[in-house]
Amino acid sequence: MLESKSKKARVRSRNSKFKIRNSKRKSRISNGSASLTTGFEFRIRPNVNLGVDAVIGDWVIIGEPPRGKKPGELETQIGARAVIRSHTVIYSGNVIGDDFQTGHGVLIREENRIGNHVSIGSHTIVEHHVVIGNNVRLHSNVFVPEFSVLEDDCWLGPNVVVTNARYPRSRNVKEQLHGATIKRGAKIGANATLLPGVVVGANALVGAGAVVTRDVPDGAVVVGNPARVVKRVEDIEEYKQ
Amino acid sequence: MLESKSKKARVRSRNSKFKIRNSKRKSRISNGSASLTTGFEFRIRPNVNLGVDAVIGDWVIIGEPPRGKKPGELETQIGARAVIRSHTVIYSGNVIGDDFQTGHGVLIREENRIGNHVSIGSHTIVEHHVVIGNNVRLHSNVFVPEFSVLEDDCWLGPNVVVTNARYPRSRNVKEQLHGATIKRGAKIGANATLLPGVVVGANALVGAGAVVTRDVPDGAVVVGNPARVVKRVEDIEEYKQ
Amino acid sequence: MLESKSKKARVRSRNSKFKIRNSKRKSRISNGSASLTTGFEFRIRPNVNLGVDAVIGDWVIIGEPPRGKKPGELETQIGARAVIRSHTVIYSGNVIGDDFQTGHGVLIREENRIGNHVSIGSHTIVEHHVVIGNNVRLHSNVFVPEFSVLEDDCWLGPNVVVTNARYPRSRNVKEQLHGATIKRGAKIGANATLLPGVVVGANALVGAGAVVTRDVPDGAVVVGNPARVVKRVEDIEEYKQ
Repeated sequence: MLESKSKKARVRSRNSKFKIRNSKRKSRISNGSASLTTGFEFRIRPNVNLGVDAVIGDWVIIGEPPRGKKPGELETQIGARAVIRSHTVIYSGNVIGDDFQTGHGVLIREENRIGNHVSIGSHTIVEHHVVIGNNVRLHSNVFVPEFSVLEDDCWLGPNVVVTNARYPRSRNVKEQLHGATIKRGAKIGANATLLPGVVVGANALVGAGAVVTRDVPDGAVVVGNPARVVKRVEDIEEYKQ
Repeated sequence: MLESKSKKARVRSRNSKFKIRNSKRKSRISNGSASLTTGFEFRIRPNVNLGVDAVIGDWVIIGEPPRGKKPGELETQIGARAVIRSHTVIYSGNVIGDDFQTGHGVLIREENRIGNHVSIGSHTIVEHHVVIGNNVRLHSNVFVPEFSVLEDDCWLGPNVVVTNARYPRSRNVKEQLHGATIKRGAKIGANATLLPGVVVGANALVGAGAVVTRDVPDGAVVVGNPARVVKRVEDIEEYKQ
Repeated sequence: MLESKSKKARVRSRNSKFKIRNSKRKSRISNGSASLTTGFEFRIRPNVNLGVDAVIGDWVIIGEPPRGKKPGELETQIGARAVIRSHTVIYSGNVIGDDFQTGHGVLIREENRIGNHVSIGSHTIVEHHVVIGNNVRLHSNVFVPEFSVLEDDCWLGPNVVVTNARYPRSRNVKEQLHGATIKRGAKIGANATLLPGVVVGANALVGAGAVVTRDVPDGAVVVGNPARVVKRVEDIEEYKQ
């Protein structure tokens, strides 16, 4: 376990191992091929595999075990050039690609699969068993529950809320959790709400504040509560190729 | 005051007293009948009465005095088996039951009354003088203002916003704050908004994204902005007994 | 750089300089004309100019450099009597007036101009290049994006979301960012959403949960999704002079 307080601690990278000594300043350690830049008060639990050239802020936890697991029991992988900003918590069992970055105060629960070039904004929460593709942007204060699927190139604006339980606290609710699917290139406007199990089609645009209760066709623009199709993305000048 | 940095610190539990020594690892201390598991950087202010078998994460504050009060002036009680996850702040003057748990980065202001088996999700804010019954679940990113009443068994989904000021910044706004009441067993869908003073009836279901401007009858299902009754909970197969 | 861990650290105030020694308790330092009260684990980066009588909580960062800037490259000014509560992050290049206060876990990005007597609630995010007048109150969980303008005396309720990108991920989106303007004395109800570039008129009132897609006239009351004018503020008894 890497503890910033320990006199010597190791963080394993794919190419190298670093020893961190307790430091009064932000530390930057390099062995030629790779570097690690950190605050000086953070936690990296055992069995965390960090790619090269990572930056880790203060008061961050990486590799936190979920309930019933021991520290290090699940491996945590984060690719090259990760930037994990202050006050962020990432549980164990995640497999995260290269060029990952988080804002401040992000929470990522266990056992998600996250692609390359993904950016997760400040204060956003990603629950467990979520699949996120490449080049996905989650803005600030977003909530993504377990079993959601976010395909490549999709974009979720600030305070978007995705859900997965149509009948909370009903019988068998756990067996009936049904995450939303956001298809490739879809964009979800600020403070929109997606109901459980809805599919937002490829390149669709959900308006800010919309409440999406039914599937959205590929390339459709929907707005309102409940959300209704008002036009096509290809009719918007700014999205024309 | 228990400070994780102090060489020796005491936390009083109902059954026992623990001394905590500065530790480089998560510490688990037991005296046979009770245990305390902690991160190694947190604050417990004076006059905090923690039940047995508590778990306290890193960068947590418990017993923070509200404005105008001194540390320890108001007693803080938290029952047995509490789990307080990292980055959470709990003010003084709270009386909280057994089996309480918080997610990460939760804020609970002063002088609330909270029952047994309550779970408050990550990043949620509970203001002051709130009454929360037994077996209540607040999900992530919820906001509950002062003078709200949440009865037993109710459930608030992610990003639910409860309000209490109908006319912000009007004359006498402080005297006219009027919290919402969520009756026993009611369920509030994700990102719904409750206006000041509304009463959501027992076992009612408020749809995700709804804006509740009037009282909701017992057992009603409401959706939309403004929310309107669309059916009865007993008509939903999943809620039949 | 002031590091709470360093044996001696200085924080520059407009009237005085303090030395902070590592302390096991909250520290309060006074030189007669001014005082500084702090937790004992926080970061103040170089070139932060704090006014007199500041209070800084634990696990706070002030003066964090934005991408591409070095620590201290941009000056950070915060006026007299600031209260910065725990887990808050304030970037460099901000110019903030007197009597500023934040809740817990606030994020304020770089290069904003913020007036006197401004209060920013817990978990709220203010992005960069925002202009905020005097006597403005942002409640909890609010999101304010870059290029927004919040005039004197305006009020944003909990979970309000302001936006600035009408067509996210379109061509030239960065050049077309267009923040909202909230005019003097306007009040935005809880969980309302403002679309990019809208102007909310002076003293207008936006209802809780409203989705504001068009400009709101001075003194109008709007509700719904999309928001529509339902009455005038001067028709509301509580706002009569």
